[in-house]
Amino acid sequence: MSDYWNEKTKQLTPYVAGEQPRDRKFIKLNTNENPFPPSPSVIEAIQKAATEALRLYPDPSCTELRQAIAERFGIKAAQVFAGNGSDEILAFAFAAFFETAQHGNPILFPDITYSFYPVYADLWNISYGTVPLRKDFSIDPAPYIDLLSKGASSGIILPNPNAPTGMALSIDELKNLAEAAGKNKRVFVVDEAYIAFTDSGSQTYGSMLPPLKDLPNLLIIRTLSKESSLAGLRAGFAIGSEELIEGLCRIRDSFNSYTLDRLALAGAVAAINDASYYDEINSRIIATRRRVTAELEALGFAVLPSQANFLFASPPAESGISGQDFFTALRERGILVRHFKKPRIENFLRISIGTDDEIDVLLEACRDILDKSSRKDAKTQREEKL
Amino acid sequence: MSDYWNEKTKQLTPYVAGEQPRDRKFIKLNTNENPFPPSPSVIEAIQKAATEALRLYPDPSCTELRQAIAERFGIKAAQVFAGNGSDEILAFAFAAFFETAQHGNPILFPDITYSFYPVYADLWNISYGTVPLRKDFSIDPAPYIDLLSKGASSGIILPNPNAPTGMALSIDELKNLAEAAGKNKRVFVVDEAYIAFTDSGSQTYGSMLPPLKDLPNLLIIRTLSKESSLAGLRAGFAIGSEELIEGLCRIRDSFNSYTLDRLALAGAVAAINDASYYDEINSRIIATRRRVTAELEALGFAVLPSQANFLFASPPAESGISGQDFFTALRERGILVRHFKKPRIENFLRISIGTDDEIDVLLEACRDILDKSSRKDAKTQREEKL
Repeated sequence: MSDYWNEKTKQLTPYVAGEQPRDRKFIKLNTNENPFPPSPSVIEAIQKAATEALRLYPDPSCTELRQAIAERFGIKAAQVFAGNGSDEILAFAFAAFFETAQHGNPILFPDITYSFYPVYADLWNISYGTVPLRKDFSIDPAPYIDLLSKGASSGIILPNPNAPTGMALSIDELKNLAEAAGKNKRVFVVDEAYIAFTDSGSQTYGSMLPPLKDLPNLLIIRTLSKESSLAGLRAGFAIGSEELIEGLCRIRDSFNSYTLDRLALAGAVAAINDASYYDEINSRIIATRRRVTAELEALGFAVLPSQANFLFASPPAESGISGQDFFTALRERGILVRHFKKPRIENFLRISIGTDDEIDVLLEACRDILDKSSRKDAKTQREEKL
Repeated sequence: MSDYWNEKTKQLTPYVAGEQPRDRKFIKLNTNENPFPPSPSVIEAIQKAATEALRLYPDPSCTELRQAIAERFGIKAAQVFAGNGSDEILAFAFAAFFETAQHGNPILFPDITYSFYPVYADLWNISYGTVPLRKDFSIDPAPYIDLLSKGASSGIILPNPNAPTGMALSIDELKNLAEAAGKNKRVFVVDEAYIAFTDSGSQTYGSMLPPLKDLPNLLIIRTLSKESSLAGLRAGFAIGSEELIEGLCRIRDSFNSYTLDRLALAGAVAAINDASYYDEINSRIIATRRRVTAELEALGFAVLPSQANFLFASPPAESGISGQDFFTALRERGILVRHFKKPRIENFLRISIGTDDEIDVLLEACRDILDKSSRKDAKTQREEKL
């Protein structure tokens, strides 16, 4: 604590991102990055932009990128906002649409979800309430709709698929939530960071883009970090009614006029325009997810049904190995996954879907850890008998 | 106005950046960009980084960049913060160090200064007071020191050199301000966006880096936009005591863990490491500033004494041409400068220092505008006589 920090700064508990190791080589399955490289057209576009006009400010309106997104998704450019990753857009959305503690009721999000949400709320002095996931870790829409209908909520935000569970709500459930919020003129933010990994062709799960036109209170936030393999580029976008997009612009232009540099803009345009490359790599990730789910289940893991590019899984209860210990054992074997020291989920590991080769190493390590632990158990039992 | 915006969003008046023309070719002297290209080593570093690991998140601590800055300026890396341009760092500094309207006294800045300051204050609900510049447009430190000593100020921020005047305070005057703020445990932020353009070798003007070690309440903010010809890259940094830097980190990590992408980080490191290239181009800008100051004065302009990479100048009073009309006349001739419709400065133009060739075109246009206006005057006089 410093005398120079103001009250807010003293009270904040900042978000802690997953480890980005700098010293040692790990198989990195801890921050949900895409295991495949970005499209070659992205790299080419960046290298070209580097030689062009870096001395000049970028286009603050991100016109070209917003047009590319609008064309790809069949909407108007005025319905698109571009930002420095979805995290920045989430920060702007909290600032733009949710009332401060003095003025309004709490916003709502799940008790187990992206752990940045309460941090944003604290940053902007927004009060929030959390709604427990069901026992099976799915989101129960009923309490949200109930609180909205009582006028006891000033907005909703949730990721779909949810993180770190990976479980998705159906499009119909989300529509019901959006409509319930809309009746009270409340904004519903759906954080679609992982939407590109829902089962393709599913009628149940998927983006809220198709019903968007009837939902002026719905803001969809996406990122190129995972689906376009560009976590290192910092580019995300939001889609919604023009009035919501204008709200985001008002906050952005009161914070930093240019948050996307010329290189990120050029790379993001190229990524948006190369859907076929990304459809191909992301369908490989979905296929690997199915395989590793089955193999972990065969080892006795409890694996939540994931629609994302990661799994949320807990080691076999009979192994007696806690989530924390399994995390450490994997780390010792050069594999980074993510573990959250939080009630209800402390025995789970969040495992990003890597390449098939990386997943093979992971599965081998899991077998080895379980094996050693059962041999130790057997030894302990023998020793107890003696 | 939208029903979905919260009270703050409705009340904000966002900052308006200088025009970035997309359609027509202008001689662009309106947003203080450096007229020379960035160092070739910067472009090379970016092109290399583009092929490396864009699929992975960048280093959230910006370790390598902070180390490069620390080495160049002879300080510790823990005294350095890196951000998405100085605008983002300014936004974080307002959030971290200045008390909200409920808790504290107003912060202070000049009445004529960077027009983003009141916007930041409104974004974070910070009350502020402005202190008038002297008649000659210089900053008078006395009222700041007076208000601080009365306990009636919760902090100070000002650019040195000031914008849009271009005039600098001396290092001694700034030290007095910092010490007066320090006595009350108040933070003094010096925005050194233009510091690389002060007269080289001057004993009077320059960066506050040398006295920094004795001033734990001083935060220096710099940007690579102008001095490193990288406005399109979005990279800035702050230097101060470790506790101030930690305060900035707390806000950044409650907003967006990664605001500098891998390309910006690589380019910024290369720029910091190529001081000799930038010293060379920036000394050419200083030389051109001297020349154009003299030539505009010869044409009858009133030119404020600039220590920045721009001039603040008003057309000859006897020409009868207003600042707004002169701005329009230059625009019609393909030259963009900046004009502010504000009391006291409405007859001034802010003119960025371009290349010598660009400045020659500007001077020719100025002569032409004045010439046409005096011929018109002569014609009017003749007609009046008839």
